[in-house]
Amino acid sequence: MSKGVTPQKEDYSKWYTDVIKKAELADYGPVKGTMVIRPYGYQIWEKLKKYLDDSFKDSGHTNAYFPLFIPKSFFTKESKHVEGFAKECAIVTHSRLKHNDDKTDLVPDENSKLEEEVIVRPTSETVIWSMYRKWVNSYRDLPILINQWANVVRWEMRTRLFLRTSEFLWQEGHTAHASEEEAQKESLKILDIYKSTVENILAIPVICGTKTDSEKFAGAVNTYTIEMMMGDKKALQAGTSHYLGQNFAKAFDVKFQDVDNKEKYVFATSWGVTTRLIGALIMVHGDDKGLRLPPEIAPIQVVLVPIFKSDDDLKEITDNVKSLMKDLEKHNVSYFFDDRKKMSPGFKFNEWEMKGVPIRLEVGLRDIKEKQLTCVRRDTSEKMFIKIDGSFNIVNKMLTDIQNNMLQQASNFLNSNIHNVNSYDDFKNIINNGGFVRCGWDGNEATEKEIKKETNATIRCIPFDQKPSQDLLCIYSNEKAKFEVVFAKAY
Amino acid sequence: MSKGVTPQKEDYSKWYTDVIKKAELADYGPVKGTMVIRPYGYQIWEKLKKYLDDSFKDSGHTNAYFPLFIPKSFFTKESKHVEGFAKECAIVTHSRLKHNDDKTDLVPDENSKLEEEVIVRPTSETVIWSMYRKWVNSYRDLPILINQWANVVRWEMRTRLFLRTSEFLWQEGHTAHASEEEAQKESLKILDIYKSTVENILAIPVICGTKTDSEKFAGAVNTYTIEMMMGDKKALQAGTSHYLGQNFAKAFDVKFQDVDNKEKYVFATSWGVTTRLIGALIMVHGDDKGLRLPPEIAPIQVVLVPIFKSDDDLKEITDNVKSLMKDLEKHNVSYFFDDRKKMSPGFKFNEWEMKGVPIRLEVGLRDIKEKQLTCVRRDTSEKMFIKIDGSFNIVNKMLTDIQNNMLQQASNFLNSNIHNVNSYDDFKNIINNGGFVRCGWDGNEATEKEIKKETNATIRCIPFDQKPSQDLLCIYSNEKAKFEVVFAKAY
Repeated sequence: MSKGVTPQKEDYSKWYTDVIKKAELADYGPVKGTMVIRPYGYQIWEKLKKYLDDSFKDSGHTNAYFPLFIPKSFFTKESKHVEGFAKECAIVTHSRLKHNDDKTDLVPDENSKLEEEVIVRPTSETVIWSMYRKWVNSYRDLPILINQWANVVRWEMRTRLFLRTSEFLWQEGHTAHASEEEAQKESLKILDIYKSTVENILAIPVICGTKTDSEKFAGAVNTYTIEMMMGDKKALQAGTSHYLGQNFAKAFDVKFQDVDNKEKYVFATSWGVTTRLIGALIMVHGDDKGLRLPPEIAPIQVVLVPIFKSDDDLKEITDNVKSLMKDLEKHNVSYFFDDRKKMSPGFKFNEWEMKGVPIRLEVGLRDIKEKQLTCVRRDTSEKMFIKIDGSFNIVNKMLTDIQNNMLQQASNFLNSNIHNVNSYDDFKNIINNGGFVRCGWDGNEATEKEIKKETNATIRCIPFDQKPSQDLLCIYSNEKAKFEVVFAKAY
Repeated sequence: MSKGVTPQKEDYSKWYTDVIKKAELADYGPVKGTMVIRPYGYQIWEKLKKYLDDSFKDSGHTNAYFPLFIPKSFFTKESKHVEGFAKECAIVTHSRLKHNDDKTDLVPDENSKLEEEVIVRPTSETVIWSMYRKWVNSYRDLPILINQWANVVRWEMRTRLFLRTSEFLWQEGHTAHASEEEAQKESLKILDIYKSTVENILAIPVICGTKTDSEKFAGAVNTYTIEMMMGDKKALQAGTSHYLGQNFAKAFDVKFQDVDNKEKYVFATSWGVTTRLIGALIMVHGDDKGLRLPPEIAPIQVVLVPIFKSDDDLKEITDNVKSLMKDLEKHNVSYFFDDRKKMSPGFKFNEWEMKGVPIRLEVGLRDIKEKQLTCVRRDTSEKMFIKIDGSFNIVNKMLTDIQNNMLQQASNFLNSNIHNVNSYDDFKNIINNGGFVRCGWDGNEATEKEIKKETNATIRCIPFDQKPSQDLLCIYSNEKAKFEVVFAKAY
């Protein structure tokens, strides 16, 4: 089944789409720019959602739901925000279809034209802050710690499944606080949840840092980000958390009476991750045989493939692995016993390889005679025999090993492809050949722009662990560096 | 806090909105017709969603996600379907906002006008069947048992929170089968899941039956429904499951090669329930003090309110109920220990009554001395003392009692307000004064229409348990009855 998948080296982008199609993760929708998330892809999203949702709730957040439709006028209230979103939004102008005169087609009924157009939410700050205005009066009403799971729309013609689609699924948190300090703390706490979820569940290491002004969210004071390295050494912004200051509170006039009886504007954060994380999962771990899924996110962690010709064979095999299956079930290891009769074992091996199942157990009559299973790890392609007796413990431990190993593999890849450079020539060399560059930047927006123009690389972030030495120079201007930053080409 | 809530008898509709606002379940959104589901309301939705989702998965269904946007042309493919939805849909015509000439406002950029308008989904049959066409080739690909949790839009100006809003949340199942029999079975299996979830979790009894042709879903062969009686004796359609025959398969050309090697059109079902069920929950169980929630759906099942003046008091009380709280936690009873200092006990009692918490436990120093708790049941308003020792078992059993009692109360109300009548005068009398009528109908659409015109009552369903006797006559035409049906005014 790796038939039909373009090798990564030949065309990475084609490989990516091939894997998505062959693993049945997603498909293109009928309207340009839209995506269908198929059951296998959606199961991955559901698992990820559960981990994140639990983390949000454990840290005091609660879910709510705000409308899809936003009045056009709201977009003019926060000036940066409108610049960021006006150019790529879906505008609803009519509320009724009617037949055209010769009844050959349906057309928008002019009598249903809306007085004010409504915008399909690209993000919900504006509509949420218009509600917070009604809900917040006193410091007693704060903090508000609300998250929403929703679909959002940013009109997009250059579709790339999971990475760039007109509509995508995400969570967006919107919190309101009495003090700047508390809001800042909140936005960093969330970044930490993102980091640990992504590392522990998706087995993807990240670089945490602050976005430069030109790359930050439209309306934010600070944008914090987790950045990842894909298999082609390009960067992916995988999640952001924004400290919004009082920008939205001022735009929507959200004030509260503080303990000191003074009226103040509320401090805000917002933060989100999207189905784009599934794209990251594919690109960080996938290979020419398809997906490789870390056990913590895999919808099926173990697949058992009986190799049989007759019903009697199948019965004998089933009887011999029953106790293993019972143990897997008891310990919440998700497994699938693939006794489909219409497919050959080879077909099944390929299919589960393509779908990235971490452990495949093959059992034929010969294995039964030897009281063993043939075990294949998807992360290393290692093949080994394990005794049926005590196999649960081995499999269970192997799942942990695979999870750790995949994070280690991805970390090694990231670390060996970040380079500290001192000359702009070296910089260009690395950017052209693939990889991240860590270097000095003078803090000047013009410099950032020039570098982007010349190399297509952008500043992914000012990493939290930067410690620019006194004599670090800007890679481009050779002026004294203000920050140490990470540059890369990005999705 | 029942202050501010209009009594049901005075104005039922105002009572309904007051409870929603005071219990903080929902609020109006800024665009007319839209709704914000606030955290407490959303928690109810999340619990309901979990029960339903588990039931769908246990019966072999899986979730997926299809696009929000549907090409306008899809709506013309199934003729009944377009009639049903064209008059109330949100039409996206542009993809960019720009400043107007004098820069005073944002307007849709004419250069961004879409070649083909897209419709915000009112339901997803069309887009889903356009995908099934790609996915189905052989009988081996069937059945497809997919569900989707999503938002949908049906333009609506006469808003009523949870019951009638332009956008609402729902689940929509869309299944594809090789035979009519299997599809029919599926649609009835789902109706059964709806019935048992609603009865067991929401404690609401339902009447199951078939919709008449004039009331069925636009594009269905049969629509099955669960109908409820609200507190004002009006009906609410609470969930529907449709057998779609081959209508959508033909409209979207979805064929498969069957075991007999013949090419056939696929058989379909679709089915959904919405956030409207929260409206039903309020109207079936609520009273003039606010919400009353059955324990299975209550976000907080038990509230403990310590009555204290000093921190020492609070500490003593806390120490005495710690073991109860530990037991509640251990047995997954969700409780809240309301030690907020800024509110009086009376304020808290009212708040939790308004929010419908099934059991309230009050604990003051005097109670501690007597080694007891004051316990108030929300369903009966009964007040009693229970010994702290062994209180967990009493509370836990009481939750079961409350759940059963609330279903019993609602069943009694329903049963005593359904009337078998033999004359049209009696019919009109009951419909005018409130209640359901069970009577004969000649099966004639004109009769149905006349009755609706004269009384505002519609046929809610042809109940599954109907057994029209040979001599039953139509309540209106006095012709021989074809069916025994249930009439009522409905939301």
